[in-house]
Amino acid sequence: MLDPIKVGILGLGTVGGGTAHILQNNAQEIARRAGRGIVITHASAKDINKTHPYSTENMVLTELNDVVNNPDVQIVVELLGGTTIARDLTLQAIANGKHIVTANKALIAKHGNEIFAAAQQKGVTVAFEASVGGGIPIIKAIREGLAANKIKWVAGIINGTSNFILTEMREKGREFNDVLAEAQRLGYAERDPTFDIEGIDAAHKLTILASISFGIPLQFEKIYTEGISKLTSEDIRYAEELGYRIKSLGIAKRTDKGIELRVHPTFVPKKHLLANVEGVMNAVLVQSDMLGQSLYYGAGAGSLPTGSAIVADLVDVVRTLTTDPGNRVPHLAFQADALSNVPILSIDEIESAYYLRMTAVDKVGVLAQVATLLSQNGISIEAIRQQEPTGEGNTVSIVLRTHRVPEKQMNRAIQAIEQLDGITGQVIRIRLETLGRG
Amino acid sequence: MLDPIKVGILGLGTVGGGTAHILQNNAQEIARRAGRGIVITHASAKDINKTHPYSTENMVLTELNDVVNNPDVQIVVELLGGTTIARDLTLQAIANGKHIVTANKALIAKHGNEIFAAAQQKGVTVAFEASVGGGIPIIKAIREGLAANKIKWVAGIINGTSNFILTEMREKGREFNDVLAEAQRLGYAERDPTFDIEGIDAAHKLTILASISFGIPLQFEKIYTEGISKLTSEDIRYAEELGYRIKSLGIAKRTDKGIELRVHPTFVPKKHLLANVEGVMNAVLVQSDMLGQSLYYGAGAGSLPTGSAIVADLVDVVRTLTTDPGNRVPHLAFQADALSNVPILSIDEIESAYYLRMTAVDKVGVLAQVATLLSQNGISIEAIRQQEPTGEGNTVSIVLRTHRVPEKQMNRAIQAIEQLDGITGQVIRIRLETLGRG
Repeated sequence: MLDPIKVGILGLGTVGGGTAHILQNNAQEIARRAGRGIVITHASAKDINKTHPYSTENMVLTELNDVVNNPDVQIVVELLGGTTIARDLTLQAIANGKHIVTANKALIAKHGNEIFAAAQQKGVTVAFEASVGGGIPIIKAIREGLAANKIKWVAGIINGTSNFILTEMREKGREFNDVLAEAQRLGYAERDPTFDIEGIDAAHKLTILASISFGIPLQFEKIYTEGISKLTSEDIRYAEELGYRIKSLGIAKRTDKGIELRVHPTFVPKKHLLANVEGVMNAVLVQSDMLGQSLYYGAGAGSLPTGSAIVADLVDVVRTLTTDPGNRVPHLAFQADALSNVPILSIDEIESAYYLRMTAVDKVGVLAQVATLLSQNGISIEAIRQQEPTGEGNTVSIVLRTHRVPEKQMNRAIQAIEQLDGITGQVIRIRLETLGRG
Repeated sequence: MLDPIKVGILGLGTVGGGTAHILQNNAQEIARRAGRGIVITHASAKDINKTHPYSTENMVLTELNDVVNNPDVQIVVELLGGTTIARDLTLQAIANGKHIVTANKALIAKHGNEIFAAAQQKGVTVAFEASVGGGIPIIKAIREGLAANKIKWVAGIINGTSNFILTEMREKGREFNDVLAEAQRLGYAERDPTFDIEGIDAAHKLTILASISFGIPLQFEKIYTEGISKLTSEDIRYAEELGYRIKSLGIAKRTDKGIELRVHPTFVPKKHLLANVEGVMNAVLVQSDMLGQSLYYGAGAGSLPTGSAIVADLVDVVRTLTTDPGNRVPHLAFQADALSNVPILSIDEIESAYYLRMTAVDKVGVLAQVATLLSQNGISIEAIRQQEPTGEGNTVSIVLRTHRVPEKQMNRAIQAIEQLDGITGQVIRIRLETLGRG
């Protein structure tokens, strides 16, 4: 058998530990597949003086720079997180001719174009399966498995923290803040949960999914992002009553006018497989022209699941060591000189169906006024109903679903509705997707 | 750009037509990914005098042998079906140094060991993504995406015809023969439906899944196979009442004693994702040690979905043309010299939970006798109930679920129960899997 491949690892936290654990515990299973061993020979972390439970006697613990500059290291696994030191070290390792495996979605989403260009120039590979959907081989499925297809859209539950919170809110009727606190206790949410609950983490991942689906450059700054922190148990209950579930989806969609890129809470039909992905699990649904719908489901985070993707990438990189770089799978699925310049649409220009909820003074005619304003803005109503008085003063809730309409028109209609005398407060608007074929 | 790769295709039926359609219609999308074109230059079919709608002016229609012997052809796509001519032509093409892409599950399941050995000797690749799960990239997911994992078990809905029939029976309360006739009208079932409804097609596919999951040789002849043709709407209704759905599953499972390989109707908890895969759709659930559960869902058959997998394989093969053969993904996921000799268990040796239904003369004590016999055979009952008299004479149904028990013990218990005076006819037995983690 060939000599083992020598890997240097940056970061020995959750994912780094998982990666080391897998390479040690499944060493035989991995070598039976890869045809040779894969061992971590050099490791580093921001604080190398801490004890690292996964360090072994064959693993040198050293400074970050030593790992990327060490001539023995053939592949560098970047698991530091963040986009500053991680970017510098990644570019340094590439300049040294090393292949990169990373789980860093923020790094790829924000600096991927630069990093891939550098890698291409050096003839090395940057593998990033672990950056989206944890251990689900979704990058591989889209880049390679669907290579025959024109991809129409991708819709994914790609943030486990948000999905856990929404699942708990629905199943137990709890409020957002209450569940968030629990998620933090359980380690599903960070102390500062902004990236997860405001959709930023999902936007990083959607940036990557969109590029490999449509063959466009990474454009994180153009994604519309709306988190789940303002969702109430009331809307979650109404969703249920109407036959839907609210999921935080990342949606990338090719239309005649350009590409929609958006992360937001979404009404999804209750019977749809995607609506039944619960807790911290992730899933990505892909609509492509030849295969139709396909779905990929699994653990989207965690030490071992994410380590599973890191190690799969290591095996892939090892296999391409003797491949002519021009014949490797391109970083963004499409050849670098074949990326296209399709415009990304602003949120005003997207088209969606909508769920609306508003509070009305319980008097005759308000519902009719709302319906008229929607109609005047070209919005056709799928269903509308006025709920029984809630007990809060003299008000009732009006809840409705619309057909598909450009968001611009919906904005105008909502503005007009909010000015009605009979309507108090803001109109709650949640986009609705049937996720049907086509 | 490099010259296009020249492909010869054997068979221009459903999948051959789909493959040709995709290569023509998505030519640009595919070349943007692969870095070069892929064109069918030679084509043949069992009857080349029929009109073939997908033949183009650049495609030579010729005899089968001419395709596999033509020096211009670099990759042969085998879509003839069957295991005689297909085997001969595949081996001939390999002997000529050509790479193979095939959708032929029977060929791989029965002659794969021989074919892969020949391919390895010649340094060519035999790609077979289309042989399991149609267009779902399940072979790729298991062979490459899960390379870091020890796979514990795989459970799949891998025959769309059976799944369509079971879905219709459940949703509309129809009987098997009635739905089968409709499936034949719709083209979902063959005129001779034996392969689909008796589980043989699923057994071919499970043979392949088991080998790439566990690193064992292909052993089609050792699979236990039970079809869906004896299922009644009565059991489907009882399943629903008990919180389950009946699915025809292919299950491959690693145990301490050996490997279970079995295709049979299975009670699956109604809320499980796999239970919600309906109609002709396929899905494979994989339990692996590092990632945990992952699921892959999509169209398991049809012209374009299967063509999607064929073309993905073509792109993969094109990419490995410059790879040292030793560095390619091994045919059965594990290096040929690292396959293991784990025994395949007979159905007597497997362990499962069970649903049982029997018809009892409505007299005091029968239920107690049944419970006693189960207990005497070491089988513990999860739930048991006697249904109201059905109107057919003086009989009632006894329906029960058991905990997990070796099939051997269950056979003894059923034999004893059938000899009870109070029991008439045979005991219906359907295996039950919770498909939980672990």
